[in-house]
Amino acid sequence: MTKLLLATRNAKKLGELRRIVAAEGLSGIEVIGLADVPSFPEAPETAPDFEGNAVAKARDAVAATGLAAIADDSGLAVDALNGMPGVLSARWSGRHGDDEANLDLVLGQLRDVPDERRGAQFVCAAALVLPSGEETVVRGEWRGTLIRERRGVNGFGYDPIFQPDGEGRTSAEMEPAEKDALSHRGLALRALLPALRDLG
Amino acid sequence: MTKLLLATRNAKKLGELRRIVAAEGLSGIEVIGLADVPSFPEAPETAPDFEGNAVAKARDAVAATGLAAIADDSGLAVDALNGMPGVLSARWSGRHGDDEANLDLVLGQLRDVPDERRGAQFVCAAALVLPSGEETVVRGEWRGTLIRERRGVNGFGYDPIFQPDGEGRTSAEMEPAEKDALSHRGLALRALLPALRDLG
Repeated sequence: MTKLLLATRNAKKLGELRRIVAAEGLSGIEVIGLADVPSFPEAPETAPDFEGNAVAKARDAVAATGLAAIADDSGLAVDALNGMPGVLSARWSGRHGDDEANLDLVLGQLRDVPDERRGAQFVCAAALVLPSGEETVVRGEWRGTLIRERRGVNGFGYDPIFQPDGEGRTSAEMEPAEKDALSHRGLALRALLPALRDLG
Repeated sequence: MTKLLLATRNAKKLGELRRIVAAEGLSGIEVIGLADVPSFPEAPETAPDFEGNAVAKARDAVAATGLAAIADDSGLAVDALNGMPGVLSARWSGRHGDDEANLDLVLGQLRDVPDERRGAQFVCAAALVLPSGEETVVRGEWRGTLIRERRGVNGFGYDPIFQPDGEGRTSAEMEPAEKDALSHRGLALRALLPALRDLG
């Protein structure tokens, strides 16, 4: 079994990658998370774009563990906010990881924005870095519209207000496997699979 | 005396325009505010840009009063926030006009943004609409850097964290007349003066 480190402490992201790797039949790869390796100093996410943060996180993980590592940086790009919260999605309210405060803030900022200008996209940059130094960076995008109040309890982050194009539900009302098939993170992680096959 | 209506309830903006008109020696013009005319319904600011909001506000004021009217829409465009808060500057925290909450929020959002990427500009679009229907729209910009904590008590809005290029002080540490000479709103209002001379 080749170990592949997903450089995240987010159990839901780890679960997503495990489902995707399993669904693709990559049976020679064991996906582990940061909780499974000795801790190492993690640099703050200060790059101005998703790709820069994803690559930096994956490089740090490879340097610290010697394992192949995947890292992602994801967020919501809101048209009426010129593409923000973007790389600041998880700390938009000024407090890192406070999903409820971040949701309340985006809903408040968009209160006067009419329905026809409420477009947005989830964006995920995913980076695979191998111990050899080889790097692959990919990007997945998922277009939709931001509704005016929360619906659904699945997912995390901005899922309760994101209604994907062509869908009547929010991404928080979709089952995990349905979301994986469509989502920005699913797209990006699947785009890394060809590079993963060489590993397994 | 020709009456010129400044379509704002903000006493500080009214004071700014009065100072500028007086400094330019336009003695035939009396600047009045919305408090001096019968109230009329004001449309919400829903345009995606400063110019659209300024013109809409000035048109509403002329239609309701028959007077020549100036309106402005101003805000802070932060580089690391892709030009936001922009038209949402006064309601960035989700609560309209809460300067302290807005300041705290921008400082929190920029906490991890390094010094070399903390550029920003104040932007003001000012519109003059005459009862004849003639419209003039101008724009003023003021470049600077956002510091990490408040300094100074003058001005309003984001002044306490905005340090203009070439200045060691924030715009909240400048005297009103100094600020008028340099600021986005001063630039825009002075750019309207040629059109005002025809009025006086």
